[in-house]
Amino acid sequence: MKIAVLGTGNVGQTFVEKLISLGHQVMIGTRNVSETVGREAFKEWHDKHPLALVGTFDDAVKFGELVVNATKGEAGLSIFSGLNKTFLGDKIIVDVSNPLDFSKGFPPTLIDGLHNTSSLGEELQKLVPNAKVVKTLNTMWCGLMVNPMLINDGNHINYLCGNDAEAKTKVMLLLNGFGWKNESLLDLGDISNARGTEAVLPIWVRIFGATQNGVFNFALVK
Amino acid sequence: MKIAVLGTGNVGQTFVEKLISLGHQVMIGTRNVSETVGREAFKEWHDKHPLALVGTFDDAVKFGELVVNATKGEAGLSIFSGLNKTFLGDKIIVDVSNPLDFSKGFPPTLIDGLHNTSSLGEELQKLVPNAKVVKTLNTMWCGLMVNPMLINDGNHINYLCGNDAEAKTKVMLLLNGFGWKNESLLDLGDISNARGTEAVLPIWVRIFGATQNGVFNFALVK
Repeated sequence: MKIAVLGTGNVGQTFVEKLISLGHQVMIGTRNVSETVGREAFKEWHDKHPLALVGTFDDAVKFGELVVNATKGEAGLSIFSGLNKTFLGDKIIVDVSNPLDFSKGFPPTLIDGLHNTSSLGEELQKLVPNAKVVKTLNTMWCGLMVNPMLINDGNHINYLCGNDAEAKTKVMLLLNGFGWKNESLLDLGDISNARGTEAVLPIWVRIFGATQNGVFNFALVK
Repeated sequence: MKIAVLGTGNVGQTFVEKLISLGHQVMIGTRNVSETVGREAFKEWHDKHPLALVGTFDDAVKFGELVVNATKGEAGLSIFSGLNKTFLGDKIIVDVSNPLDFSKGFPPTLIDGLHNTSSLGEELQKLVPNAKVVKTLNTMWCGLMVNPMLINDGNHINYLCGNDAEAKTKVMLLLNGFGWKNESLLDLGDISNARGTEAVLPIWVRIFGATQNGVFNFALVK
C-alpha cells in the first residue's frame, strides 16, 4: 500500500522503517523538505532507509492511500488545518499523537482544551470531517507500536477508536501486520473515546519516571 | 488496629467488611448518624456486619489510628475541611477516592480544577497539611482493592503516592494484609503523582463501557 507518514521525529521514523520492511511504499511528510533533508541527523537516518520518499505534507497526503499522524502534540492540528483537503479526501488517518505539554518540564501535562471534555483525536476529526480518523497506538513507546511481540509474547493492550467501523477494520489489518493479535485490540467506540486513551499518558509518564523504563505496556487482566 | 472509614457507600462498606474480617476495629463515619442508620439499605448491611461502629466523621477520625477516605469525589474535600483537626492530627489518610463528575452522564469526566495540573489527592493534602495522605487503590473496582487475589493470582498493578515515606510503608503493610504482593505495588513518589493515578479513570470507565465488566485491572508487562 502507499502510505503517508506525517512527522519526521522518532515516531515517524519508526513507522517508516516498519512499513518499508513490510513492503509498503512510504512518503514521509514534512513542513520544509530542503530543511529536513539538510539536517545531519535526518540525513544519517535517510542514508539507512533510502526507500523512504520525502515530500511536503501535501505531497505525502496526495501520495498515500492512508495517512499516519506521527506529529507532535497540537502541531498536528495546524498541519491538518493547512492541508489541501482535495488530496486528503476521505482517506483514513491513523492518529498516534498525544496532546503533551512539556513547557513546564517533566512530567508533562495535557494541553489545555485537549483533554477531559475533548481530545486531540476529536479535534483532528472535526478539522477534517470527510477523512476517517482512527486513534490507536498512542498509549505506548513507539518501538512497541510497530513491534508488539517485543514484550510478553505480544499480550498487552492496544485501544482503537473512531467513527467509521470499516476504517477501524482496515487499521486492525495493518496492526495485525505489525504483530498485534486481535485479542489485544480493544475497540472503544467512536472518536470521543480518545479522551480515554490520551488520558493514559499522565500515568504512563509517571511509571516511566519511577521505573526509568519505557519498554512496557499495560495488559488487561480479569 | 483502630481504623476510621469515611463514606457509607459501596466502597466504604467494602473496606469495613474486609477490615473487620482481618480483626481490625472499625468505625464508619457519616455526616448524619441517625439519617444513615435509619436508611433501610444501610440497616440491612449493618445487620450483617454488626461489629461496624457508626459515628460522625469527627467521631470516626477521633477513634481511628488510620483514616480511609472512601467518600465520593469532591465531597471528601468539604468533609475533611469541616473536620476537627485536633482529632485528625498527623494520622495517615488512605485516599481511595476519585474526582469523577457524573453530572453529564456516562462516561464521567474529571472534576474541573482536580485534574491535569492538580488532583483530588493533592488538594486533600493541602487541606490537612499535618496528616499524611497516601493515595492508593483508586484505579480499580472496590472489590479488587481489598481482594486482589480475585484475579490473575493477584498479579496486577496498584500505585501508591504520598509525601511521607514511613506512611507509605505502613500502608503497604495494610495492603499486604489485603493480599497485595510487594511486586504489584508501585510507589510513584510524592502526592502530585495522584494526577497520574486519578487520570486512569477516563480509560477505566471506557473499558468498562466497552466490555461491561468492571472486575479487571491493568498489569504492567515488559
